[in-house]
Amino acid sequence: MKTLREIGEDALIERIIRLVPRSGCPLAGPGDDCAVIDDHPESSLLLLLKTDALVAQVHYLATAPAFLVGWKAAARVVSDFAAMGGYPEHFLVTLALPPETAVAWVEDLYRGIGACLEKFGGTLAGGETSSVPERAAAVISIAATGRVEREKLVLRSTGCPGDLLFVTGRLGGSIRGKHLDFTPRLKEASWLVSHYKPTAMMDLSDGLAKDLPRMAAASDCGFRIDEAALPLADGCTAAQALGDGEDFEILFSVHPSHASDILTDWKKTFPTLPLTVIGALVETPCTRPLVGGWEHFRST
Amino acid sequence: MKTLREIGEDALIERIIRLVPRSGCPLAGPGDDCAVIDDHPESSLLLLLKTDALVAQVHYLATAPAFLVGWKAAARVVSDFAAMGGYPEHFLVTLALPPETAVAWVEDLYRGIGACLEKFGGTLAGGETSSVPERAAAVISIAATGRVEREKLVLRSTGCPGDLLFVTGRLGGSIRGKHLDFTPRLKEASWLVSHYKPTAMMDLSDGLAKDLPRMAAASDCGFRIDEAALPLADGCTAAQALGDGEDFEILFSVHPSHASDILTDWKKTFPTLPLTVIGALVETPCTRPLVGGWEHFRST
Repeated sequence: MKTLREIGEDALIERIIRLVPRSGCPLAGPGDDCAVIDDHPESSLLLLLKTDALVAQVHYLATAPAFLVGWKAAARVVSDFAAMGGYPEHFLVTLALPPETAVAWVEDLYRGIGACLEKFGGTLAGGETSSVPERAAAVISIAATGRVEREKLVLRSTGCPGDLLFVTGRLGGSIRGKHLDFTPRLKEASWLVSHYKPTAMMDLSDGLAKDLPRMAAASDCGFRIDEAALPLADGCTAAQALGDGEDFEILFSVHPSHASDILTDWKKTFPTLPLTVIGALVETPCTRPLVGGWEHFRST
Repeated sequence: MKTLREIGEDALIERIIRLVPRSGCPLAGPGDDCAVIDDHPESSLLLLLKTDALVAQVHYLATAPAFLVGWKAAARVVSDFAAMGGYPEHFLVTLALPPETAVAWVEDLYRGIGACLEKFGGTLAGGETSSVPERAAAVISIAATGRVEREKLVLRSTGCPGDLLFVTGRLGGSIRGKHLDFTPRLKEASWLVSHYKPTAMMDLSDGLAKDLPRMAAASDCGFRIDEAALPLADGCTAAQALGDGEDFEILFSVHPSHASDILTDWKKTFPTLPLTVIGALVETPCTRPLVGGWEHFRST
């Protein structure tokens, strides 16, 4: 009997989503950062839905400060709304915790969630707490609704051959701390969709080596990247920038005619955050797959 | 340092919800079955949000058929929408599973979720899969959006002294099987809010002994119940009907002037499902607390 470890996360998702009735006429496919629902066709806003989970010993160590674990849990969801050109609204927080968990730990976790929501504009609508058996791993699952203006929605499936690929910030080495206290690029993505609407966009959660091929495949494109151009975090190699994951930077594609204007305006608007052209979407699928990145069940 | 086992779920929730910015002007408090959001004031529909989780060894045994675990995970959420007078729409399914889980088990789980959504009208909008460490408990967390017509919304906080208390179905003994394959009372609650709108309503998940005091307290009332009148599941005692939990029947209150009409019309509409008057909301808080029912962290 096959186990999840043998087939990995991507094959699992392909198999199971066929077994359940799917939301009709989805504007974004199941692989995108959020689900997009046109819940009020007369409104200029679309509904975004997202769920994300942190698991103890997988996404954070027992020694990680609870405040930062809470921040990370909420910020990952904010990052996904940013990646669609939208913003977060209502959060539902589900905690499955062993009974020996300290109350003070849970309070700090909530303070971290609260700090993130305060900074990026979401609010708590509800939640659920459950016990897990003694010494079982804690699971923090956050679901949220968001909104995006209809004309600002950016999918990962709408890139075109020839579009240049950009990433914000620097990649690699997130495990040294950034994965816990990163800043979701909400402000930056919102500026982008208002001024130079990308043709495709996503956030980098599993590493460029996993995420870029997903965006290219969703857009029916291949890609080329210039490894020498990758914006490296201090002390990181290109392999780490490709494979470490949890960068939570934004990857996007734009028509090459806008490239120079974007770079100039970006520098004026966000002088401390690098923006880098790392390659392009191309017509034909890639022959040389990228190495690295995170896939659940297989990578454990 | 205090642990969750020492303070229990109810005290935990009271402490943590103060630490996070809350959704403004909520129509339902954090203790209600769903969060209620007035997302389009010009629309006749309100947005309902709910999250709920199943944990292996807490909510189901390893020997439980995966199909029924999936059914239960989705049906619990449907039951909460029913308890507000609403209906489910878009589901987000988060699975945190150990890598040694069989693929066939996850497929059956999804088939169970799918069967429930097909029967009660929800659809899958998205999801998330994550690994947990080997042999850690699986967590299945389901968040969903629903809708309720503005004038059909029923909260648990709006009961009045003198209102009679009703429950659907029979209580107790759910652990013998019903907790896995129960029918959420969506059709029945929808009929109720259209014909005899209850003054307060909730679903019974933790047992009447825990849930009725919550509804009464939310409504600033006391309650009296007639234990001899409790509709008992086959072979169950009144203590089991009060304390076993996971009945997923509907508890509601109505003005006494409607009682006889409801009972007559109910019998015509749902001839095979009992509806029973079990007591009333009263002015003064109870002096004798009910015994039994489930509280996470303490009951483990």
